[in-house]
Amino acid sequence: MHAIYQYQEFFVDYLEKQTISKEPKNLYEPIEYIVSLGGKRMRPVLTLMSSEVFDVSYNEALPAAMAVEIFHNFSLVHDDIMDDAPLRRGQKTVHEKWDLNTGILSGDAMLILAYQYFEQYEPNTFRELAKLFSKTALEVCEGQQWDVDFEQRNDVTIPEYLKMIEYKTAVLVAAAMKMGAIVAKTSEENANLIYDFGLQLGLAFQLQDDYLDAFGDPETFGKQVGGDIIENKKTYLYLKALAYSDDEKAKQLKELFTTQPEDSTDKVEIVKGIFNNSGASKETKDAIEMYTLEAFKTLDKMDISDEKKLSLRTFGENLMGRKV
Amino acid sequence: MHAIYQYQEFFVDYLEKQTISKEPKNLYEPIEYIVSLGGKRMRPVLTLMSSEVFDVSYNEALPAAMAVEIFHNFSLVHDDIMDDAPLRRGQKTVHEKWDLNTGILSGDAMLILAYQYFEQYEPNTFRELAKLFSKTALEVCEGQQWDVDFEQRNDVTIPEYLKMIEYKTAVLVAAAMKMGAIVAKTSEENANLIYDFGLQLGLAFQLQDDYLDAFGDPETFGKQVGGDIIENKKTYLYLKALAYSDDEKAKQLKELFTTQPEDSTDKVEIVKGIFNNSGASKETKDAIEMYTLEAFKTLDKMDISDEKKLSLRTFGENLMGRKV
Repeated sequence: MHAIYQYQEFFVDYLEKQTISKEPKNLYEPIEYIVSLGGKRMRPVLTLMSSEVFDVSYNEALPAAMAVEIFHNFSLVHDDIMDDAPLRRGQKTVHEKWDLNTGILSGDAMLILAYQYFEQYEPNTFRELAKLFSKTALEVCEGQQWDVDFEQRNDVTIPEYLKMIEYKTAVLVAAAMKMGAIVAKTSEENANLIYDFGLQLGLAFQLQDDYLDAFGDPETFGKQVGGDIIENKKTYLYLKALAYSDDEKAKQLKELFTTQPEDSTDKVEIVKGIFNNSGASKETKDAIEMYTLEAFKTLDKMDISDEKKLSLRTFGENLMGRKV
Repeated sequence: MHAIYQYQEFFVDYLEKQTISKEPKNLYEPIEYIVSLGGKRMRPVLTLMSSEVFDVSYNEALPAAMAVEIFHNFSLVHDDIMDDAPLRRGQKTVHEKWDLNTGILSGDAMLILAYQYFEQYEPNTFRELAKLFSKTALEVCEGQQWDVDFEQRNDVTIPEYLKMIEYKTAVLVAAAMKMGAIVAKTSEENANLIYDFGLQLGLAFQLQDDYLDAFGDPETFGKQVGGDIIENKKTYLYLKALAYSDDEKAKQLKELFTTQPEDSTDKVEIVKGIFNNSGASKETKDAIEMYTLEAFKTLDKMDISDEKKLSLRTFGENLMGRKV
């Protein structure tokens, strides 16, 4: 096993060797642009790591890792259109830098390119990878649709919210890990267990992202702290706060989430107060811990060496150890 | 072999048995809507026919035919957004009936659903089908990009135009036929020959569509006759007319193609006159005949019975026999 930063390097080296850009330029340049913008490359790293957990060199898993990363970037390009987002990783989004049509069409091409990376595997592995990929990609679309639908609804339940973040975020983390297992041709049981590990960890990660969006350190949190509150996003914190508040506080919170004041400082502070006083903050932290521990529990069931289990656990602890 | 209308019935029966609609409704209802709008189902029919040309029941080819039809509808949904089209087959387009985001996301889901239909085949066939599908789908995206690019350019050449319609239209017709061959597990040579047959016929079909758009019978041609002229589309007729006109006529044609008069009757008549007098109409008809004959020539090389060759030829003649 290698260290995370090494897997990142292996992946970026591989990525840089790909010749994505060809004719027509207006189709392929936006793809090269978005894929080169960077990011932590967490999902492809998980694929590489996972293949080595099952004793197969990360080299074998590079095409599958690339498929995962291209798919992730496809979803960013199309989601940014839907969210009308001007920036991604501090740079212009594709539909801003080019236009709407380019964003749609380049995104479509990325989804297809992702599938093509599986062609580097023999038929049985190809089929397993593509099947898992299609299932996952469709779930990501469903998650995105739930997310869009939830914006218009005032009766979203906690289980519905959890299902949404599971589909929109966690399944791809889980699938990224299972792809490493498929490439390594480990047992179906091991493959399913590492999927579950990824799923629980993905849920914990997304809930932590919700939490840090309100309570994170502006110095280390990548996005604007308080962003979800400013945009009236109904996150886990918000839904728990509503559930735990008396009628009066719930009414106040709901009303605050209909406003978008120019100076949002007061709003953010009041909402954070309600999150803390209602017990929603503690509930969220508890849920993050619960999902993280669930992830670690699935490790115990896996048929791999203790050393490998420790590697996965350390990765999980590092991922979740992002400071508030 | 069955008659075309029978393959259409077999396909529509199969289509109607599919349960596409599930939760979230806002993702799947638009898919059911667009797929149910109808059309001639030419591409899936070709897949069914092709499998029977190679002595395997159309039943085996139904999932592949479904993948082709769903992909075709995916491309309609995303193209209609890019073209800002309000109507499709006389009904509202998806982005008009719902909204832009629904059009993008439902389209994405359709592309993935198409791949899932290949999962009904064993690994080797699955891999071959998915590989051909990815290659074709990417070419369709490239063709669409060229088409978008050409709108902004005044120096499009005839070979560039032919490449564009090959990618945007003909490769899917060709792939639809080759998929039937793959399902039937015929020889690679036969599979490639039926691909070529489909490609040439697809080119002939698209050029005929260009021709009928100007000179078709309003009673039988599905779209508004003169539509391409009204929208200043640089079709084969236009490019040939430019190439065959003297400087003065070329200038007149170019100028006419910068206007969009409210009453387009005169413009359409003048342009059609230039198409005829320049020899562009005849050139286009000659090209259509040439590609059709090329298609029929590939039939001779195929290792199938004369009866099967005649079926394919009759299909081609019927397709191209659409009356001007």
